[in-house]
Amino acid sequence: MTPTTSLRRQSEKAKRLRELHHQPRAVIFANVWDVTSARVVEEAGFPAVATTSAGIANVLGYPDGQQIHCEEMLDVVARIARSVKVPITADMEGGYSTSPLQMYSTCEKLIESGAVGLNLEDSEDEESKLVDLSLYLEKVKAVRQASDDYRVPLVLNARTDAYWWKGADPKTRMQETVRRANAFREAGADCIFVPGLKDLDDIRLFLRESPGPLNILAGPGVPSIPELEAIGVRRVSIGSGGYRAAIGLMRKLVTQLREQGTSNLIGDNAIPFDEINGLLRRK
Amino acid sequence: MTPTTSLRRQSEKAKRLRELHHQPRAVIFANVWDVTSARVVEEAGFPAVATTSAGIANVLGYPDGQQIHCEEMLDVVARIARSVKVPITADMEGGYSTSPLQMYSTCEKLIESGAVGLNLEDSEDEESKLVDLSLYLEKVKAVRQASDDYRVPLVLNARTDAYWWKGADPKTRMQETVRRANAFREAGADCIFVPGLKDLDDIRLFLRESPGPLNILAGPGVPSIPELEAIGVRRVSIGSGGYRAAIGLMRKLVTQLREQGTSNLIGDNAIPFDEINGLLRRK
Repeated sequence: MTPTTSLRRQSEKAKRLRELHHQPRAVIFANVWDVTSARVVEEAGFPAVATTSAGIANVLGYPDGQQIHCEEMLDVVARIARSVKVPITADMEGGYSTSPLQMYSTCEKLIESGAVGLNLEDSEDEESKLVDLSLYLEKVKAVRQASDDYRVPLVLNARTDAYWWKGADPKTRMQETVRRANAFREAGADCIFVPGLKDLDDIRLFLRESPGPLNILAGPGVPSIPELEAIGVRRVSIGSGGYRAAIGLMRKLVTQLREQGTSNLIGDNAIPFDEINGLLRRK
Repeated sequence: MTPTTSLRRQSEKAKRLRELHHQPRAVIFANVWDVTSARVVEEAGFPAVATTSAGIANVLGYPDGQQIHCEEMLDVVARIARSVKVPITADMEGGYSTSPLQMYSTCEKLIESGAVGLNLEDSEDEESKLVDLSLYLEKVKAVRQASDDYRVPLVLNARTDAYWWKGADPKTRMQETVRRANAFREAGADCIFVPGLKDLDDIRLFLRESPGPLNILAGPGVPSIPELEAIGVRRVSIGSGGYRAAIGLMRKLVTQLREQGTSNLIGDNAIPFDEINGLLRRK
């Protein structure tokens, strides 16, 4: 297969995104859910953009947890990819797939959308049982196969929910997390994402047992990025936190509007009309 | 044409929305741009939902001002209509039409989306010249005709930009605003929307010359809703203010994340994950 100019450019972006995981400073993702939030993040100087699947699902009318169709998710990813110049990586939940063939097809659509990386998790949502490790590893291989076939080396952020899922045993969860992480790396994952892992000693322990890029989820109760960087964390993201904060501000605003008839939270927080429209004008 | 059950239900919603414009208390709209913001507004107890066209256009990747396609705008409106029980009215800019026939077609699609009301403005955006009054009045008649044909009495919030457009003459703008407003009412508009009108004396003057439902845009420098109600304003909306405030909070958050490596604005503002997902679960 001869890559087109567009695929060659996409391949360059994938390489740039991968390199961001191998620098002294951690790569930080302020996850986005629509074109405006993506442009805000790009303008703030972030070198790449990641999506939040929960945010995208919600704003289209779905709860989180693979209720949304893969195509609807990727329609938003494609809109964002057309609007930003930096590399984009998409939160693809469980890959909208229950087989390696489906996962390969998801990767084809993902590449078509313009994205150059993905999150792939090993549970349906944090309530549900983890998927079988061997199935997950086959999905990882499907990602690598699609990357080779299209010559777009997708950056795979492999997420295990072994640490925080509701059924996790506090005594054995670290061991299981490390076991999965090392199998993911071995199969071709570029970075391991362990939501719920936030204690500095636990992170150090994990990195000793599973050296390589690690993604920590920032938020309440999590050490600051400088502290995480200092012990070797290479990727930090906020998941749905930014989305939930933005809509939380909207809720405060509408509650005040309804109860007091005032709208000062608009003046205190709003980006001016001309400025926000300027973000969306094609250059 | 015999209305279906769904159209009959839609007709009831249109009547409920219209009644909200004829009560001692003003009807308040906290304009929304996606399903989550619509659900937040509904849960906060607002009796109806209105969209912001600027917000919807932006989050899909377009600047404001009829750059978005009518169908894309209505796809979002339809998603919202499927997710909320209260009546929904859509900001339809200039109706995505330059003729009464096109306006009629827009109304057919609007009814199909599940909405029961619309904003229709007499300029392309606040920079551009106002459209010819006679063309606008023909569009109003097209709205009424579609309402009759489908038996869904669309609530028309007729917006004139005569007061605030860049070329408005401060000496004559009130006179032109009143002239247009009265022609709009005569042609079948349910409410008049005058963005930029915010001085209490000016609002009193307008209402003396053009009695009937009036929509005032709330925001910085605008009197509180109780003050507006007291002088007879029947509808208050926030336009794109809530959307711009929500994304403004996201910008503060990502700036802090990038510059200080901290994410406390998440903890201070975010709606908890389970709670926000609960808003999107179908009942």
